[in-house]
Amino acid sequence: MRAEILTIGDELCRGEIVNTNSSYFAAKLWDLDITTRWMTSCVDDAADMTAALEVAVSRADLVICSGGLGPTEDDLTVDVVAALAGVAAVEDPAARANLERRFAGRVAITPVQLRQVRVPAGARVHGNPGGLAPCFEATIRGVPVICLPGIPREIFTIFDGGVRPAGRAAEGQRGPFDGGGLLGRLAELREARGNVERVARTIYRVFGRGESQISEVCRGIVDGVPGATIHYQVKFPETLVKLVVRDHDGAAAAARLAAMDGQLRTRVGGFLYGTGEENLVERVGRRLQDQQTTVATAESCTGGMLGEMLTRLPGSSRSFRGGAITYANDEKIRQLGVSPDTLVAHGAVSEEVVREMASGALARFGTDLAVAISGVAGPDGGTPEKPVGTVWLALASARGVTTKKIGFPGARDLIRTLASWWGLRMIDEALDG
Amino acid sequence: MRAEILTIGDELCRGEIVNTNSSYFAAKLWDLDITTRWMTSCVDDAADMTAALEVAVSRADLVICSGGLGPTEDDLTVDVVAALAGVAAVEDPAARANLERRFAGRVAITPVQLRQVRVPAGARVHGNPGGLAPCFEATIRGVPVICLPGIPREIFTIFDGGVRPAGRAAEGQRGPFDGGGLLGRLAELREARGNVERVARTIYRVFGRGESQISEVCRGIVDGVPGATIHYQVKFPETLVKLVVRDHDGAAAAARLAAMDGQLRTRVGGFLYGTGEENLVERVGRRLQDQQTTVATAESCTGGMLGEMLTRLPGSSRSFRGGAITYANDEKIRQLGVSPDTLVAHGAVSEEVVREMASGALARFGTDLAVAISGVAGPDGGTPEKPVGTVWLALASARGVTTKKIGFPGARDLIRTLASWWGLRMIDEALDG
Repeated sequence: MRAEILTIGDELCRGEIVNTNSSYFAAKLWDLDITTRWMTSCVDDAADMTAALEVAVSRADLVICSGGLGPTEDDLTVDVVAALAGVAAVEDPAARANLERRFAGRVAITPVQLRQVRVPAGARVHGNPGGLAPCFEATIRGVPVICLPGIPREIFTIFDGGVRPAGRAAEGQRGPFDGGGLLGRLAELREARGNVERVARTIYRVFGRGESQISEVCRGIVDGVPGATIHYQVKFPETLVKLVVRDHDGAAAAARLAAMDGQLRTRVGGFLYGTGEENLVERVGRRLQDQQTTVATAESCTGGMLGEMLTRLPGSSRSFRGGAITYANDEKIRQLGVSPDTLVAHGAVSEEVVREMASGALARFGTDLAVAISGVAGPDGGTPEKPVGTVWLALASARGVTTKKIGFPGARDLIRTLASWWGLRMIDEALDG
Repeated sequence: MRAEILTIGDELCRGEIVNTNSSYFAAKLWDLDITTRWMTSCVDDAADMTAALEVAVSRADLVICSGGLGPTEDDLTVDVVAALAGVAAVEDPAARANLERRFAGRVAITPVQLRQVRVPAGARVHGNPGGLAPCFEATIRGVPVICLPGIPREIFTIFDGGVRPAGRAAEGQRGPFDGGGLLGRLAELREARGNVERVARTIYRVFGRGESQISEVCRGIVDGVPGATIHYQVKFPETLVKLVVRDHDGAAAAARLAAMDGQLRTRVGGFLYGTGEENLVERVGRRLQDQQTTVATAESCTGGMLGEMLTRLPGSSRSFRGGAITYANDEKIRQLGVSPDTLVAHGAVSEEVVREMASGALARFGTDLAVAISGVAGPDGGTPEKPVGTVWLALASARGVTTKKIGFPGARDLIRTLASWWGLRMIDEALDG
């Protein structure tokens, strides 16, 4: 099944906003064995929108159309789709009731406001639990055209089923085909065409090696495995390795995927830190809370970035006590008890200093773990011995202090992010016991 | 002049990457009075790419095509464009020399590698200062088709002129029409069509009021001003207000823009913190260094986020000494000298406590300024008196302590970002004297 995604809006075509909706739609469709062959954007112009829809229904089996459903005169999607479907635009009673409920006593309902509760006559209305303009499905020249608003937050709710059918299992247990919301309808459309390939997929999260090195060690892993592909996605500073098997038999796809798992883990080795949607920041935050382990930070070049990451999850006060940001050398002495002699002898970016920073933080904060970071984030301050990108880290616990040195010849923000992630990774390894 | 932007790649159509290139191109074109009417993406498939280019040259006066220029078998743009232009694909000598220079002694040059230095015969070659595959311009059915690689970093260099013509003024003094690189060529193409509208524009940066409130106070400001438009772009937590005047006479456009400046500033008032490309993080970092003012932080709910922002700019060690992340109440006492009685009497999220945090930091770090933040970031921990989103801030200096309370009923990450920006804003105001 071939889909086209059409996103509408002047601000898109002026480059004022980045089109995140199209990639969101495409990823969701791909999981349902619906291939996005075209993604098109056009301006808020009835003639251009009409032409774009005509092209789309001529080459695709399904059209996802986003934007142009609001109340203003610029919002033309309902009128254009209705005209192409050969029907009138009519008010949807449920959408109107929703609008009246939301506006009650706060905002006057004007004719302009009512523009957004219209749909093409005869359209299948999917609603909009998080907003006003309803998602609807019209048919143009036999091709289903599903129209959604352009606001990402509303789209997520419509897709994943803010209105989840009663009795559904929790989020984590849902497969791609049994979701509520629009996903369920899309799966139904796909199933109706038959010959559906099921998608079995594992996302491996890798940190500490670049994409080219990872793709090198994974080379050939899917060779000879029917329907298997491997994809790499860089989300600095980590890389996602997506192992995918497609088969009409979902169980067969899952079995072939599982059979490759061990080999992939062996090849990637210690750089693989997890699987699934949870990234390292979320993983470490969760594990600290689960294991009731307390932590403190002592940061120099990262300036608080590691502390920010360790407090990103709700409930982090259960694990994070605090930190010392010791950007100036005097502060390393005052706040952490680093010896002035050590600073003079080895410099602030040294194994000796991060050791004392971490030990000092452990003693002062009274935590189970303490992480210290000191490095040359650049662009200035590098020397031949300690070039920009040189970062020392230390992790202190009752079992002693471990250290790590990294060297990454990149930009300041990348060096700082990488250093903070290495701090997380040291905590993660400490939590392994 | 109407442009179409065509971006090519399977990973785009699987939704694995967000298409930031299209919005980059569109914004650049808009400044040159070239209107992007269509943005299309398709997969790495010769038939689809051919069809997309045929549609594009049939409706646009200029096509920008990105992606598919690499060395692998999936990279088909050169072949497809050459076939549509009715010419052969040939090696570009300059691109080959560039590749040989870069690979010298490190990587063997294989036939696969040489695929990426080909161009359609007769194409105008614009090069690629930051990469291997050259940007080139072919003509299909009379329409210029400019092909670029898909890597953003390479695109930026090609557009803005990594190879800047000798004698050009510094970056800040360049207008949109006299840039080096591809921008110069695009301006030339636009000029050749005549009747060019010049774009005069000011970006106003507003923090502390939402988009709807700002658009309300700015209502009507462009009414009756020929060629003037106003646009709003939310970049949480700030909103950009873009005032634009287009006119064939550049000086007239600039004059009408300048005439609206005072009124806009009056209407937006104290929420307007700056103009241009510099955001609040960069502005405060720069001003602290310029004014040789030192600062320290005392953060609770933001966990280090403000410290990270204050160390984002190179050279921030000249202004930022350090900070205390005092997530636990005991740490507010130990690190900052907050009185246990104050904590018990008023709670950690209170004016009294942030006052003591800021004063304590000022004394201990010995800085000119100290900022303290304590709030309920949620989603738990809210009470009827102090709901989630309640944040107290304080700024201490030799002149005393000022405080501020904010209430923002949003998600945890938004509350923390907003709180840190308010911390920056308090520093910014203190720097005003």
